[in-house]
Amino acid sequence: MQGLGRRARAAARQVALAPADKRNAALKAMAQALRERAPAILAANALDLAEAKAAGQKESFIDRLLLNEVRIAEIAEAVASVAELSDPVGRVLATWEQPNGLVFERVATPLGVIAVIFESRPNVTADAGALCLKSGNAAILRAGSDSFRSSTEIAIAMRQGLEAAGLPGDAIQLVPTRDRAAVGEILAGLGGTIDVVVPRGGKGLVARVQSEARVPVFAHLDGNCHVYVHAAADLEMARNILLNAKLRRIGVCGAAETLLVDKACAATHLKPLVTMLLDAGCAVRGDEATQGADPRVTAATEEDWATEYLDRIIAVRVVDGLDAAVDHIERYGSHHTEAIVTADEAAAQRFLAEVDSAIVLHNASTQFADGGEFGFGAEIGIATGRMHARGPVGVEQLCSFKYRVHGSGQIRP
Amino acid sequence: MQGLGRRARAAARQVALAPADKRNAALKAMAQALRERAPAILAANALDLAEAKAAGQKESFIDRLLLNEVRIAEIAEAVASVAELSDPVGRVLATWEQPNGLVFERVATPLGVIAVIFESRPNVTADAGALCLKSGNAAILRAGSDSFRSSTEIAIAMRQGLEAAGLPGDAIQLVPTRDRAAVGEILAGLGGTIDVVVPRGGKGLVARVQSEARVPVFAHLDGNCHVYVHAAADLEMARNILLNAKLRRIGVCGAAETLLVDKACAATHLKPLVTMLLDAGCAVRGDEATQGADPRVTAATEEDWATEYLDRIIAVRVVDGLDAAVDHIERYGSHHTEAIVTADEAAAQRFLAEVDSAIVLHNASTQFADGGEFGFGAEIGIATGRMHARGPVGVEQLCSFKYRVHGSGQIRP
Repeated sequence: MQGLGRRARAAARQVALAPADKRNAALKAMAQALRERAPAILAANALDLAEAKAAGQKESFIDRLLLNEVRIAEIAEAVASVAELSDPVGRVLATWEQPNGLVFERVATPLGVIAVIFESRPNVTADAGALCLKSGNAAILRAGSDSFRSSTEIAIAMRQGLEAAGLPGDAIQLVPTRDRAAVGEILAGLGGTIDVVVPRGGKGLVARVQSEARVPVFAHLDGNCHVYVHAAADLEMARNILLNAKLRRIGVCGAAETLLVDKACAATHLKPLVTMLLDAGCAVRGDEATQGADPRVTAATEEDWATEYLDRIIAVRVVDGLDAAVDHIERYGSHHTEAIVTADEAAAQRFLAEVDSAIVLHNASTQFADGGEFGFGAEIGIATGRMHARGPVGVEQLCSFKYRVHGSGQIRP
Repeated sequence: MQGLGRRARAAARQVALAPADKRNAALKAMAQALRERAPAILAANALDLAEAKAAGQKESFIDRLLLNEVRIAEIAEAVASVAELSDPVGRVLATWEQPNGLVFERVATPLGVIAVIFESRPNVTADAGALCLKSGNAAILRAGSDSFRSSTEIAIAMRQGLEAAGLPGDAIQLVPTRDRAAVGEILAGLGGTIDVVVPRGGKGLVARVQSEARVPVFAHLDGNCHVYVHAAADLEMARNILLNAKLRRIGVCGAAETLLVDKACAATHLKPLVTMLLDAGCAVRGDEATQGADPRVTAATEEDWATEYLDRIIAVRVVDGLDAAVDHIERYGSHHTEAIVTADEAAAQRFLAEVDSAIVLHNASTQFADGGEFGFGAEIGIATGRMHARGPVGVEQLCSFKYRVHGSGQIRP
């Protein structure tokens, strides 16, 4: 494992200095290799699937693990599309001149070595490897033991692509063991060779990574997202946004989990919104006022306000004004994504300023919490920490920066 | 200690939402309170000094601890000058519109709660507290036990200033104990209330913080800075820059510690540069070629290349071209600050691109590694990590960001 880290560090320096067209050529070659290696990948996947089925894994688990011709083509396409993104490395983020004539530039540079720890989805091997390379970083990928064989075959294609473009194959390495101790070594930083860890998977994994990692982590544990229907909300807009935020996809981190309805519009808005959710097959757990709106509403407990259901369930509460809404979100929320629906611009400004979440939206669905929807092209995850990367983590967020200073012989007085 | 953290977190929310003029009014009131409380501060300082002298502390230690009327006036002035900096909170860092009409803004927000751990200089209580408040953060300050009484009196003035402006006094708290266990609690994150730790002090402190902290750290352990005199360097410019980089102040982190002279200009440049340093009272430890340039040069060991002397000593080596210079810096350097002296623009571009340090300069002294010289106004330190803040850490670097998204009813397809 320590050798893995040293090789990643050496490769990181080479890919950091490689020109964009070389990194892009590698991405295209990877896509090609993935397509060509489809039979080998499918054969490995069949073994992983057989083992998972024998172990009695759930349907949803099997589906995450499953690869087929179409999915491999999609994976290859996703890798190729990363090549089309604009180059994040070397962007001049700021430039200014001091009175002594020194010209300062703040320039984006790769972060270094990024470790990605994931579970059953073997496509992460390709997605994460591609995003790391695009941003000039080396990747150490730790696959879940369930997808180990599939990921190993995908990683071979990634290495082929790197080498075809004249880049070091070690720039994308899969941890070559199912041994669980490897995760602990990665979280300890692998002898100082890892700059950041990105967990991709369920809450158990994220919680372990956040509590054990001795290196920075880009992640979010919960996406307990809120929709606040303000006193001045248009009911029709609130309906559309709420339905989309809660039910477009229930399993994504940007799915709404709690609806807050302002007391001032509860008389007109609460019942239609609650009935709409119930009629759409979403269970509603509400406070007393909400229980009064429809007999199908059950009582919400304190725990409901803090729960990320990822299910066809929503918690609903009537709040007394914007301050109460913000207080509720600060108390129970996870600093991920929250939306206000209102026609009152001043109220929206206050909500966007006062809610301390990575993403705050006015009159739009919380399900826009996604790097693709932000225009980032692709994301490696969404972070709720306040350091370095917050919100969707795309290739620009996988960069650090440095200062270039141009002088003409200046010395400091 | 846990109560301290909770109070800081509550205060952080208030100062984060306070308008700039309120934070600036507090800074001015702090400066005023520092001036008015000078007698109490000096009395406390006299007790700290007496204890340090009785303990047999060195002259340099006593000097760092010493306060007098002039120094207190300077501290107050520094705090007042922070009020004059432009407001880092709420800056719109980027804005763009997606095809669906959603308008995205990336906006600077405070980081939250910043812990600063320092040693004998009591002025850090004022400097660090002021920078944290300016950037909308709450500060937890841990003074060295030697400066505890002085820092306590300064902290009272800071609290007075906060309260005079209607802000919570808990926004700047000094840890009210000399108990060493408090540092461990801070490094553990004080129950999740601390967002980042900044150590201000010697290498022992920084090393402990970096190895023990369970929260992000803004710091640098070493400032092993290099000046590389390239083949195409103007000798006169090299002389001026080298003299300044090494000897302007020998104890600062941006002081040059190693001179690399290109083999291609060694015949003309090595002897004059080495002789200049020796004549200026700087010991030179060199490789064989350098030892041949002047009989006063002693032999450098492998350890010298990796040493931050912070003294009138420099290591000198002749390197065979730009690649060898970059390799030397990558192998022995500390990723802090390095300069190239050359009239060859292409060589300079390569050096600035390939050297992986927070600050890379062309034709300018390494002693410009300073937030003030960058135009940041003031800095809380210089960081060599790649995450979030790199280089001088000023009020802008003490900020995080969030995304504000403005819609008109958009839902995600």
